[in-house]
Amino acid sequence: MREFVVVGHEAPTTPDFALDDLAGGAGRLDVLCRCVTAGLLFSHGVREDARVHLVVGDSESGGGGDGHGDGADDERGDQGDGQAWTVTVDGARVRRLNPDERSTAALLRGALADREEAIGHLPAEPSPGVEIRRFGLETTLDELVGDATVVELHEDGEPVVDVTPPDEVAFVLSDHRDFTDAEAALLADRADARVRLGPERLHADQAIVVAHNWLDTDGFTRY
Amino acid sequence: MREFVVVGHEAPTTPDFALDDLAGGAGRLDVLCRCVTAGLLFSHGVREDARVHLVVGDSESGGGGDGHGDGADDERGDQGDGQAWTVTVDGARVRRLNPDERSTAALLRGALADREEAIGHLPAEPSPGVEIRRFGLETTLDELVGDATVVELHEDGEPVVDVTPPDEVAFVLSDHRDFTDAEAALLADRADARVRLGPERLHADQAIVVAHNWLDTDGFTRY
Repeated sequence: MREFVVVGHEAPTTPDFALDDLAGGAGRLDVLCRCVTAGLLFSHGVREDARVHLVVGDSESGGGGDGHGDGADDERGDQGDGQAWTVTVDGARVRRLNPDERSTAALLRGALADREEAIGHLPAEPSPGVEIRRFGLETTLDELVGDATVVELHEDGEPVVDVTPPDEVAFVLSDHRDFTDAEAALLADRADARVRLGPERLHADQAIVVAHNWLDTDGFTRY
Repeated sequence: MREFVVVGHEAPTTPDFALDDLAGGAGRLDVLCRCVTAGLLFSHGVREDARVHLVVGDSESGGGGDGHGDGADDERGDQGDGQAWTVTVDGARVRRLNPDERSTAALLRGALADREEAIGHLPAEPSPGVEIRRFGLETTLDELVGDATVVELHEDGEPVVDVTPPDEVAFVLSDHRDFTDAEAALLADRADARVRLGPERLHADQAIVVAHNWLDTDGFTRY
């Protein structure tokens, strides 16, 4: 299984955004949409062995809240209500996932719309293969990626070619912003490896594409 | 210089499409938008050594028409009027290129809106670094990519790791459809190499990302 955990620092936590304004009013949801499609789609098909987890809201929250919104967190893109959410899209089960940003955003909006149905550690699943949980980054790593090798993608990491591709792997990466200090500290403790994919800094979705290619080719050896 | 020539088989040739419906009414312009951003953007910047050429319309046209539309080719997505158009986006000069599909589509729509200003082999340049010419695939290869090594990306090609990364390279790839027989024949004659990027078939924009990474790392050796 290939897992991609993407921390979104500027993403909406409610469905109150317009699909026509993903890169503006929706606080850069476009970045996360591209991560979902990069993680799960290839030509004419879905990668059934992959899942993408989008962590939005307060990623430092431990998650597992009481399941009742406090009514103050209904603003678009609010990152400060102390609640994190993780939307998981599972390649094995998702339906109607298309490569364009807009339709992917609609799928994610559906998950955010049902977020209050997620109670404790239990997810809501508004459509097949799309789940939302009250999980922050730490809980997502603990509860969702299992025993996978956790690989932090980072410009200061080890060259990816010096690492043996793991069978079960969870890549952790940030959106267009850097990890916060707390996230970085968590990953310093939790990641099994920290790798870089090349000399250039890539967008998160581009990094996912290269990571897949690295695994597809078993470390650039199998074509 | 890195050139990416993308043949769009289902793309509009006029500006009469809605930005809200890129993957439907605009005939999969979304695919070409992602190719532009994959080719020209990385984290927090533009690849100034790269250009993306989108060939739309009748790619088998030699291009270099007389500069006067016949009035019958004003339908959205019309591929059959015998005229091809190539929209070139130049990383060194483009302004206001953002990673989301919608704003990229607006940039391309501006080029299509000015297409009748392109006369013979002369381009129209409706905004800095965005040009449109009456060129098909063959003329684009002849006139725009200069002496670059022409590399066809194809699932039956040689493994990319067996090829030395050229200094000046023009990758030619197709959108979500295969090359037509005529395009394939042209490339059989014109391409210096035919390579594959891995065992899995990728989307065009994903292939561009991997191709960049191959060049960035000088064949997966420099990190």
